[in-house]
Amino acid sequence: MYSRLDALSQMGVVPEWTVIYKKSLAVVGLGGVGSVAAEMLVRCGVRKLVLVDLDRVELANLNRLFYRPEHVGRTKVDVAVEILSRINPDVELIPFSIDVSGVYESDVFSKALLDHQVDLLLACVDNYTARMSLNAIALELDLPWMEAGVSENAMSGHIQTLLPGRTACFMCCPPVIVESEELESTILRPGVCAASLPTTMCVISSFLVQNALKYLIKFGQVSMHLGYNALLDFFPKTPLRRNPSCSNERCKTLQQKYSEWVEDNDFAERKQVQLSVETSINPWNIQVLDGGTQFEEKGIITESTFQDLSLSDLKNKLSALKRR
Amino acid sequence: MYSRLDALSQMGVVPEWTVIYKKSLAVVGLGGVGSVAAEMLVRCGVRKLVLVDLDRVELANLNRLFYRPEHVGRTKVDVAVEILSRINPDVELIPFSIDVSGVYESDVFSKALLDHQVDLLLACVDNYTARMSLNAIALELDLPWMEAGVSENAMSGHIQTLLPGRTACFMCCPPVIVESEELESTILRPGVCAASLPTTMCVISSFLVQNALKYLIKFGQVSMHLGYNALLDFFPKTPLRRNPSCSNERCKTLQQKYSEWVEDNDFAERKQVQLSVETSINPWNIQVLDGGTQFEEKGIITESTFQDLSLSDLKNKLSALKRR
Repeated sequence: MYSRLDALSQMGVVPEWTVIYKKSLAVVGLGGVGSVAAEMLVRCGVRKLVLVDLDRVELANLNRLFYRPEHVGRTKVDVAVEILSRINPDVELIPFSIDVSGVYESDVFSKALLDHQVDLLLACVDNYTARMSLNAIALELDLPWMEAGVSENAMSGHIQTLLPGRTACFMCCPPVIVESEELESTILRPGVCAASLPTTMCVISSFLVQNALKYLIKFGQVSMHLGYNALLDFFPKTPLRRNPSCSNERCKTLQQKYSEWVEDNDFAERKQVQLSVETSINPWNIQVLDGGTQFEEKGIITESTFQDLSLSDLKNKLSALKRR
Repeated sequence: MYSRLDALSQMGVVPEWTVIYKKSLAVVGLGGVGSVAAEMLVRCGVRKLVLVDLDRVELANLNRLFYRPEHVGRTKVDVAVEILSRINPDVELIPFSIDVSGVYESDVFSKALLDHQVDLLLACVDNYTARMSLNAIALELDLPWMEAGVSENAMSGHIQTLLPGRTACFMCCPPVIVESEELESTILRPGVCAASLPTTMCVISSFLVQNALKYLIKFGQVSMHLGYNALLDFFPKTPLRRNPSCSNERCKTLQQKYSEWVEDNDFAERKQVQLSVETSINPWNIQVLDGGTQFEEKGIITESTFQDLSLSDLKNKLSALKRR
């Protein structure tokens, strides 16, 4: 089952794929994004997966991948365990049918994360309250996590990497709803059924798990914040840095702990991957820099491995790349 | 089942979602990309789906989504029909267990495309021979198609839109293997098992089906060629224009037929979607243009709907967008 994955190490694409077989992850929220993310992780052969959701499968969920008509009415965790254990019985699955926003439940969940030695938490929830709870838990445990979201009109989404004390926490750069201290329920439009598309959900699931694999196995470039605009096929990348004035005290304590930390998620750069072009869109300051193997500043378009090539070499290499 | 999809029209995101319920599509190749693409289309409620593959499910396929261990040994089309008909019995499925590269088979397949009034063909094949056959069929029938591919090391992929006589055909801008007239078998490295990742496959499936939905329902911007570099989260967009010197005579005939055609796939622009940024990377000529509601030239970074906003308005809107 893993021959096409083990080939990644054999081909030199990743340093050592088998690292993933020892990793323990948690997926919170088994909706359109989380369920597919969990399936990908199971097919990649992670050691252990903590699965969390409180909801039941509804008919309205069937336009996304994963659940099937015969699952309607059952809890998502039960169905997920059934499906995933049939796909790969070697992965240990630990289901929790809880709402992580509850005080008691968040304690239970924190304990589970410790007990199961979770290396990375993936948040695939659909509300800010849950994200705020997960932020508090991740900061408390100093646990790396990644967060994914899809807009209510199904036309955009994002993923974000949150390394406590090193990158922005969820409160360093708070969404409007958190900043304004409004109740989330007051801004939800009554009577409007959120739209969703299997395509947009799956782009976000795939970006999330790809980023998780890159972070855990150490290959490529881990994206701090990657957006997807479905209408325009536009993919903004935004470095979200830790905020020294973050309103969360625990975040500030961890910032102290990691004061020496330097952004170092560019495994592709360290491996000197040939023909790499880092592209990160900064709408206010777009530049093309020549040469240089270190990125002085993110948020610019950099050509780092091109310095020894002539223009015609570059054109040839790029056209070969396009033809792939 | 379709409430979250019908919401797309209700919310004004797409002109009329229900158009998709009348569409007939063909998916050729039910591997890691095609099988997931077919499932998405079935969950989106297309009317009819022609499914084509000659292979059987192998254990080595199980690291991607869709097939499960109990399917190993059966033909992919049989399994796909079984899975997809359970997910949505309302979609008519027409299976073909054939190799479209064969002379007789390509005739059978052409007839099926006509008989089933296929609106769009999706090519999810893994070799150039099959792509060349599909190119010939699409040109012969003047049938729009979209093509997807993932690299042998699982680290990149692309989708391409091919509208006969209007955009580049597969021979207008031929890949190296076609140009050099080498036999494909001579460049495959013996003993090397191609790597694959569910994440990369799923990004490409999702881009492909999203692009198909945009083309068929007319919303957003249809990408002519969209690439994905998994290591760097880099997404090159390349407009592939028809080549007046194409070596395919049928292509040149159709170019004559559509000589009046102008690139007009930007439904987002026509709908004047708010806060849109078209971004297309041209490594040789990067510019930011002010204003203008028509794109004079693709391959540039354009800000088209911003002309009436101040810089601070823009910053606020962009930060609101990020916070979503």
